[in-house]
Amino acid sequence: MNIFDDKINSYRDILDSHLIDIYKTGPESLSKPINHTLSGKGKRFRPILTLIIADINNVPIEDAIYPALAIELLHNFTLVHDDIMDKDVLRHGIETVHEKWDENTAILSGDAMLAISLKLLMRNKSMNKLDLIQKFVNGLLSVCEGQAFDIEFESRKNVSVNEYKQMIYLKTAYMIGLSAQIGGIVCNLPSSKTEDLKEFGECIGMVYQVQDDLLELFSDSKSMNKSLDSDFALHKKTFLWVSTPQELKPELNMILDKFEFDKTGTIKSLRNFMVSNNIKLKAENFIEENIQKSKMILNDMEGNVQFLRYYSDLIFNREY
Amino acid sequence: MNIFDDKINSYRDILDSHLIDIYKTGPESLSKPINHTLSGKGKRFRPILTLIIADINNVPIEDAIYPALAIELLHNFTLVHDDIMDKDVLRHGIETVHEKWDENTAILSGDAMLAISLKLLMRNKSMNKLDLIQKFVNGLLSVCEGQAFDIEFESRKNVSVNEYKQMIYLKTAYMIGLSAQIGGIVCNLPSSKTEDLKEFGECIGMVYQVQDDLLELFSDSKSMNKSLDSDFALHKKTFLWVSTPQELKPELNMILDKFEFDKTGTIKSLRNFMVSNNIKLKAENFIEENIQKSKMILNDMEGNVQFLRYYSDLIFNREY
Repeated sequence: MNIFDDKINSYRDILDSHLIDIYKTGPESLSKPINHTLSGKGKRFRPILTLIIADINNVPIEDAIYPALAIELLHNFTLVHDDIMDKDVLRHGIETVHEKWDENTAILSGDAMLAISLKLLMRNKSMNKLDLIQKFVNGLLSVCEGQAFDIEFESRKNVSVNEYKQMIYLKTAYMIGLSAQIGGIVCNLPSSKTEDLKEFGECIGMVYQVQDDLLELFSDSKSMNKSLDSDFALHKKTFLWVSTPQELKPELNMILDKFEFDKTGTIKSLRNFMVSNNIKLKAENFIEENIQKSKMILNDMEGNVQFLRYYSDLIFNREY
Repeated sequence: MNIFDDKINSYRDILDSHLIDIYKTGPESLSKPINHTLSGKGKRFRPILTLIIADINNVPIEDAIYPALAIELLHNFTLVHDDIMDKDVLRHGIETVHEKWDENTAILSGDAMLAISLKLLMRNKSMNKLDLIQKFVNGLLSVCEGQAFDIEFESRKNVSVNEYKQMIYLKTAYMIGLSAQIGGIVCNLPSSKTEDLKEFGECIGMVYQVQDDLLELFSDSKSMNKSLDSDFALHKKTFLWVSTPQELKPELNMILDKFEFDKTGTIKSLRNFMVSNNIKLKAENFIEENIQKSKMILNDMEGNVQFLRYYSDLIFNREY
């Protein structure tokens, strides 16, 4: 444990302590599922990024906490709705809302979380409040569009690598870029600097998503394997799938078709297939490119970016 | 037809012409259901209220159109999600999104409509832009809470008149009050005046909802009868239901229980029950109180409120 780990843990504690008190009034059919969702052991990865940017700019946590919480609520709104769509039954180790209650409760409590998110966002002292809201709203549309493409791809026979990259940009990277950018806006940094932070966050986001695709297949962690099941069931297009050359697709499909009869065997064959055809390598190269790009952006940034470097390295080296 | 009718019709045309072009880019799985929803023949009742307030304050339509469209998109977002929850198959004479496509498409295109709504809201020249957004976001949470209470009430054995009023305030009246208030904010009126407009709009909203409850039972319009079916199926609590005295509830329940076997007979018995026990009268009195309150607010308003009076009278006298 070093000083950065301590800070990260304390940020997570502060966020969690706010989250359990975020919506106490109102109808129980909203407050219960909302509190349930926010009691899950999320990594709080996005709002911590926002808080770190406040920290390195010597802005007190109190000035950044509500926009950071807004980001976390927005993220959780998308999870609650996405879990209905993907029929996922577990999230952060606890039952999803539509599983514990029902779909109606999940739709409506998701909507309410978005409303709460926007209310939290308004609580900030930034001189560029309108800019903050504008970017947040753009992020909301982006994440809807990304999710729409993701679902459209399930039933598509072909999806190009570029289409896939565009999808994960909209669905994941934009929001992580926003988490960093919002940190900059709250610190009243000039827009050239908040744009750099956005781009830096987007690199992390691209890495994060392709890591997910890799870890789902190559990690032995149980939670990653769970996602794999649901991805297979839905014919999700992953970076590995879209990067498989056209002439190898028949072979890939033959392997995938065996999943429901022999899960362990299929995973083994798939791992072999992805390694021997250098498709795993393509994913690793894509991740590496984005890591390098993020490092270049960091190197050009003024001030003390050590904490930000430490945090992004934690993500780049994650194993689950 | 008089000059006000002409204006109202032209506002509806202007709104409709914007609505069909509101979301052309992006994934088809979003743009198609969004355009389908907005092509329905909605009354555009809320945004027209906003535009009338701009008109009577001599503010050009162009300055109020985007916030007015934002209100209509917000309203349609709630309809798309509510229709999933209530399992309604028709809306404005066309299939609902979850019926024409599926639930996932309806959840996600509803979310995207909300994002578009917020983007439209940002397009205004008001000096009080942040105030506008704050009130809009409060309205969003209000409508979620109102819908949550409405659903909670379905499975409750008893709901008081006050609880019911609170529910329709949150679900319907707040948003109509907001439509009027936003008109005032766009015209840069002082907050005392925008608060009057809000209260005026809320009176219209309370009237509108209780009218709905009455018309569903007493009108012979087909669309109103459709709502009645779904209300019965869901055990919806209406103004008439909550206003039935406790000692008459067993008799009311006996009548309601016959609905699935004999629809026409049940409607006839219900009408008799509500008339002979003066419960219909209670609803009419509540409507009248709110109409009088709205007229008092209008009488105290400065400026030319004739158009606003004409428009609210149209609503008060509606028969479907």
